[in-house]
Amino acid sequence: MKVTLISFTPDPERVVAASARQCYSKFSATKALRELTDADIQRLLKKVIESGHLSVLEHASFTFAIEDISRACSHQLVRHRIASYSQQSQRYVKLEEIDFIVPERIDRDGDLKKEFSEALEICKRCYKRLLEKGVPAEDARYILPQATPTKIVVTMNARSLMNFFELRCCLSAQWEIRRLAEEMLSLVKQVAPHIFENAGPFCVTRKICPEKKYDCPKWVELYKK
Amino acid sequence: MKVTLISFTPDPERVVAASARQCYSKFSATKALRELTDADIQRLLKKVIESGHLSVLEHASFTFAIEDISRACSHQLVRHRIASYSQQSQRYVKLEEIDFIVPERIDRDGDLKKEFSEALEICKRCYKRLLEKGVPAEDARYILPQATPTKIVVTMNARSLMNFFELRCCLSAQWEIRRLAEEMLSLVKQVAPHIFENAGPFCVTRKICPEKKYDCPKWVELYKK
Amino acid sequence: MKVTLISFTPDPERVVAASARQCYSKFSATKALRELTDADIQRLLKKVIESGHLSVLEHASFTFAIEDISRACSHQLVRHRIASYSQQSQRYVKLEEIDFIVPERIDRDGDLKKEFSEALEICKRCYKRLLEKGVPAEDARYILPQATPTKIVVTMNARSLMNFFELRCCLSAQWEIRRLAEEMLSLVKQVAPHIFENAGPFCVTRKICPEKKYDCPKWVELYKK
Amino acid sequence: MKVTLISFTPDPERVVAASARQCYSKFSATKALRELTDADIQRLLKKVIESGHLSVLEHASFTFAIEDISRACSHQLVRHRIASYSQQSQRYVKLEEIDFIVPERIDRDGDLKKEFSEALEICKRCYKRLLEKGVPAEDARYILPQATPTKIVVTMNARSLMNFFELRCCLSAQWEIRRLAEEMLSLVKQVAPHIFENAGPFCVTRKICPEKKYDCPKWVELYKK
Repeated sequence: MKVTLISFTPDPERVVAASARQCYSKFSATKALRELTDADIQRLLKKVIESGHLSVLEHASFTFAIEDISRACSHQLVRHRIASYSQQSQRYVKLEEIDFIVPERIDRDGDLKKEFSEALEICKRCYKRLLEKGVPAEDARYILPQATPTKIVVTMNARSLMNFFELRCCLSAQWEIRRLAEEMLSLVKQVAPHIFENAGPFCVTRKICPEKKYDCPKWVELYKK
Repeated sequence: MKVTLISFTPDPERVVAASARQCYSKFSATKALRELTDADIQRLLKKVIESGHLSVLEHASFTFAIEDISRACSHQLVRHRIASYSQQSQRYVKLEEIDFIVPERIDRDGDLKKEFSEALEICKRCYKRLLEKGVPAEDARYILPQATPTKIVVTMNARSLMNFFELRCCLSAQWEIRRLAEEMLSLVKQVAPHIFENAGPFCVTRKICPEKKYDCPKWVELYKK
Repeated sequence: MKVTLISFTPDPERVVAASARQCYSKFSATKALRELTDADIQRLLKKVIESGHLSVLEHASFTFAIEDISRACSHQLVRHRIASYSQQSQRYVKLEEIDFIVPERIDRDGDLKKEFSEALEICKRCYKRLLEKGVPAEDARYILPQATPTKIVVTMNARSLMNFFELRCCLSAQWEIRRLAEEMLSLVKQVAPHIFENAGPFCVTRKICPEKKYDCPKWVELYKK
Repeated sequence: MKVTLISFTPDPERVVAASARQCYSKFSATKALRELTDADIQRLLKKVIESGHLSVLEHASFTFAIEDISRACSHQLVRHRIASYSQQSQRYVKLEEIDFIVPERIDRDGDLKKEFSEALEICKRCYKRLLEKGVPAEDARYILPQATPTKIVVTMNARSLMNFFELRCCLSAQWEIRRLAEEMLSLVKQVAPHIFENAGPFCVTRKICPEKKYDCPKWVELYKK
């Protein structure tokens, strides 16, 4: 998995804070943009996030290039509808080298890994044979397992990301999309640290566990020590 | 593939027409709902659709139960974001019988079909072995090819459906999602014939071909005979 | 204010429960639709709502005809983006009788009410004069106060309604949209009682007060008696 | 009316083009981002826009601070749902100086303007009296006419902007929102000239007039000279 933050709203925290400022004061956003101090910005961000006035976070957008996630993972990812996606087409692009994604649970067990790898190899060979025989890529790919890697560009605004992290940084989330979410969170924290300071799963953001798994290691770490 | 229209807004054309009526007249929607004749409704629907005032179509929703489409197809389907989806989870549900979806291009060629079926069989066996060895379904499924069937419930409103049909009833669309779109169109036409009278690909709805394939059989049939 | 539930997904709780059932079992939604008992449905709804698996609620849609709310209120209403609206146009429809909405705080104070009513009357006269002089309705309406009534048809799915109620049934919400939200909630409770059983402001649904107003009468009623 | 482009995705055309490139080739978006020449970018943008593959445009976002538009205009604006808004609250912010928006049709007619201005003045006085008497701003504002100015921050992605321009740059659009749309278009053209090169009303983008007003000056200018 390779995740790169390829673009984002410049000075995202200032833009969000200036928008929030305008909602509740005579200040115009342009004036707020010029005059807010860093301390003002941090105070405003803290306030809107704590009070759940999250719509202002939508003014900051983040674009990621994601490579080498499985089709299983991308299928989950694109279920998040408040986001924009551009995915490498398996209809138009014939895969050549295919580095399949192998779940750790399988990777660490010699026998299982062997069997899994052989099955993948057979699928890959079948895919190539189909292409050679003139079957279009859009049909040949039916033999490609969900372990097949894909590339996708994703844009989400900060509010949608917050929700994505709540759902996908949770230890109950499937391991691959959780790893993806954690990578994305670590990247946005570098450029918008005060927006994403307390981002993460529900147990972090809202001190609740919607699935009531109170023996989850994360919950124990947070609230039972 | 099995597609069932399991629910929809009752009397969808009346609801849409009454909403349209209220936009441009003193009439309330409740009064329009009672008093519009069938002829009024048809006239109003024709007018809003022709003039592109499509937002009123959003008041009519349609829910489909879709079974036995491939994961390749469902991945394309859920890219339509103005819609609601409930898909059978491969994380929680272990597949037992698996009737793979076989593209016609492969199905009709004896040799290819044999090779394709063998590869599928190996994947299925590997999947079951992984489950037997205690690998969670969410990891075992990485070996399942995109030909694996899935079940999904989809709700779209009439406007979003129109857009879906424009993109997916097109002869350039991938065959499986096109078949799905055609099934869905034929089902909604039975219950909302005037809304969907001219629904279909862009060449039907707007007399254009965004891909400029003027030798496409559909274009030829429509405009070159 | 007059609020009418003019249409909704038939048997909404069964449709939602059947969709939920399919997500986590081998059952197809069509089979679940036929076979779920009322007790099954209630149990499933309780489970999805408590665990926050709210996407299944999107399969149930509700359409309201709303009359005689102020433009102040409709401006707030249409800020909810996961919804569909058809509003009577002030560009195309010339208002004749105008029954302004008067806030109770003003209505109960004789002097204030008199002054308020006189100002409204002057605006109404000015509006009519402008129309008589040939000014288009779309320009004449600039003199119409926000107390001016409007008509609007709204469709929201159950999930979006839940969120709408969380925000707008709150005692901190502006009185007119709160009254509207309460009316809408009471209407949907009649046709989908188990979906909306615990719907309402955040203090009801999540036992939290995002605004930290712990002396709010509602909070006191719920948690301090 | 004052419209400022306060923020946008840096190098928006490169980001969009790189995303498009990845969809249809083996190239990763990160590689495309580095290696695409300006000529490549222009060619790719032209291709995706002409073929209607508009989803890639969503990766570029634009944030505007808008001041001194009327509440009539902001009500229309916020009907565009694929966008983010932060509007100055009339519930929390008491207006002091109020520079009403006067439609040109009224402004240029001495008598009408006088009557209109007097009615506005009475509303303003009434608003201030209500505030003095302790009526909350959220109720006092019911007397404020739709000519009352507002401030709003808006973020839209390039695809949603395209659609906004199609609808609102049209000569049939109401004059104020058309002026706003034209300002916004002129601002984004400066920073993303190839994305917005042919943006504008439907007669420009698609060579059609959904309202069939073929005697419209714009249509005549474009197609009848």
